[in-house]
Amino acid sequence: MISFLPTVPALHDPALEAALGHAIDNKTKPLGALGRLEALALQLGLVLGERMPRLREPQLLVFAADHGVAARGVSAYPSDVTWQMVHNFLGGGAAASVLARQHGLALTVVDVGVAHDFAAQPGLLQAKVAPATADMTQGPAMTEQQCRAALQVGRSAVADRPGNVVLLGEMGIGNSSAAALLAARLTGLPLAACVGRGTGLDDAGLERKLSVLQQAADRHADATDALDLLARLGGLEIAAIAGAALQAAAERRVIVVDGYICSAAVAVAAALSPAVLQRCVFAHASAEPGHRALLAHLGAEPLLDLGLRLGEGSGAALAWPLLESATRVLAEMASFESAQVSRETAT
Amino acid sequence: MISFLPTVPALHDPALEAALGHAIDNKTKPLGALGRLEALALQLGLVLGERMPRLREPQLLVFAADHGVAARGVSAYPSDVTWQMVHNFLGGGAAASVLARQHGLALTVVDVGVAHDFAAQPGLLQAKVAPATADMTQGPAMTEQQCRAALQVGRSAVADRPGNVVLLGEMGIGNSSAAALLAARLTGLPLAACVGRGTGLDDAGLERKLSVLQQAADRHADATDALDLLARLGGLEIAAIAGAALQAAAERRVIVVDGYICSAAVAVAAALSPAVLQRCVFAHASAEPGHRALLAHLGAEPLLDLGLRLGEGSGAALAWPLLESATRVLAEMASFESAQVSRETAT
Repeated sequence: MISFLPTVPALHDPALEAALGHAIDNKTKPLGALGRLEALALQLGLVLGERMPRLREPQLLVFAADHGVAARGVSAYPSDVTWQMVHNFLGGGAAASVLARQHGLALTVVDVGVAHDFAAQPGLLQAKVAPATADMTQGPAMTEQQCRAALQVGRSAVADRPGNVVLLGEMGIGNSSAAALLAARLTGLPLAACVGRGTGLDDAGLERKLSVLQQAADRHADATDALDLLARLGGLEIAAIAGAALQAAAERRVIVVDGYICSAAVAVAAALSPAVLQRCVFAHASAEPGHRALLAHLGAEPLLDLGLRLGEGSGAALAWPLLESATRVLAEMASFESAQVSRETAT
Repeated sequence: MISFLPTVPALHDPALEAALGHAIDNKTKPLGALGRLEALALQLGLVLGERMPRLREPQLLVFAADHGVAARGVSAYPSDVTWQMVHNFLGGGAAASVLARQHGLALTVVDVGVAHDFAAQPGLLQAKVAPATADMTQGPAMTEQQCRAALQVGRSAVADRPGNVVLLGEMGIGNSSAAALLAARLTGLPLAACVGRGTGLDDAGLERKLSVLQQAADRHADATDALDLLARLGGLEIAAIAGAALQAAAERRVIVVDGYICSAAVAVAAALSPAVLQRCVFAHASAEPGHRALLAHLGAEPLLDLGLRLGEGSGAALAWPLLESATRVLAEMASFESAQVSRETAT
């Protein structure tokens, strides 16, 4: 493990696993009848180390930053939308704000590298490492120093917050480009399989995006390890999310991963510390075509499949009630004994 | 339309549809970026006839009944589990009770035909038509009279309750057999494609179930219309759910449909009144193999796919927060104008 990053030990507690499995199997329902919710209940118990896991003070962290490559026309929206959406998050009008309110998630927007000066305000964590990344077609997106600093922003954002679960989201015009480059390198798939329309490119825009990203991929073909890839092809918010995932995993918090960009960040974290994945709940399969490939690479089964492609942590927030349901099933459902319900007959 | 059933007119309001579409498209997100949630917001607005639809006093109705065919060994559980689970619902320990509590759904259990005498108690609607259906391998499951009475139970259960949305669930050992027979007839698929393990049959049990159901299908091969099929092959709770769906549709309530058994009941309702389907939100694709075929037949796209096979309305309850999210997106998200966020650039 890299010295400045936390250690994430593998979770291994057969006694707890057996106890949780026994509790789930004795609930008043046929064996396995709650499907993915049962696996989720087991995972939450194992991550939190509790037979009756309770999710406390969930934190929705939206990491925001700008991307030098956006100037190359890889997005349907101008970079200004990044800072404008930060205001929208804080003003309560973004999808993530609305969903956070619905589910009682504490929303913090982390400015890791937005090209805008924000006034201090509640809900905004100011931790700008740089006003944006550099254009990765011309050189590395970040210096090694910047990348380390952004990882540290993510770590601190988690470490300084209460609760035992974080939901990770992002905002950054151009960041599906960075995610695509990282996904292609980490999965070994062709770049074209990892590049999508992002916020809504048309066919010509998609072709241009692919051509720009191919330049970036070619220029950085000699990148070797995950940290090097992250610095050269990533984004400040992506590095921060990787740091947040590592920190949350080390603290044994549950990590709810949003869409493509967050999954790419978590894939970097998992390349550094594979046991991070044990703590991750992948919220949804996005409409970006590369996301499914990346999820498959990670062995991840997303909870939702709603054709979302918004980011912001919106998919993580939409999946949140399922995590609550999983813990309530464990805590509140009766057992066959307590409810005096007959068991299955021999067949 | 059959005279004792309500009329369900087709929804058709192009002005409202345009207004809803415009509101959704002007929210601060790329066009279509909230995927299925956007289609859901549109549907809820159209069903309720409101530009800003609000879901009020959601009612989770769990219709319970026993099945004569259960005596033929088509389920892994004894029929006693039906009444025992009714107690469990009312005692708060069943999955449906837990999820209803989580989401603030008013839970009513409707005894349409459980082979047990219940004391009057809060949350239980006593409307027993018969103590169970007859064994459909030997004759019709219900008389025409019983079937009509059960349809009426469902209609009244909805009509007597407040709010503008119903979530439909069921309990009845043996009812995946009835659902399979109805699904096979309504879709035209081979019976084997519609028969699954229900609460958890092993291979031998599944083979026995298929053989028993083939007898029933053969015996009733001359059934013609949907009502005749329902009476001969259905169940008291299934008829009640069909009646509930028709009534809710006629009252322009949103209908959240749980799994295989509820979908079979709704398919009967839709065969009688196709416009019922416009009001239906299909909550999930269950692990019962016939459910996907039935959903495809209905042109339905379920919201969740979590491998559930419990019934009780548990899948409907799990999907519920997505409906809430859809309405909140409409009501609470800022527009590009109000949030002063830049629009997409020409690409």
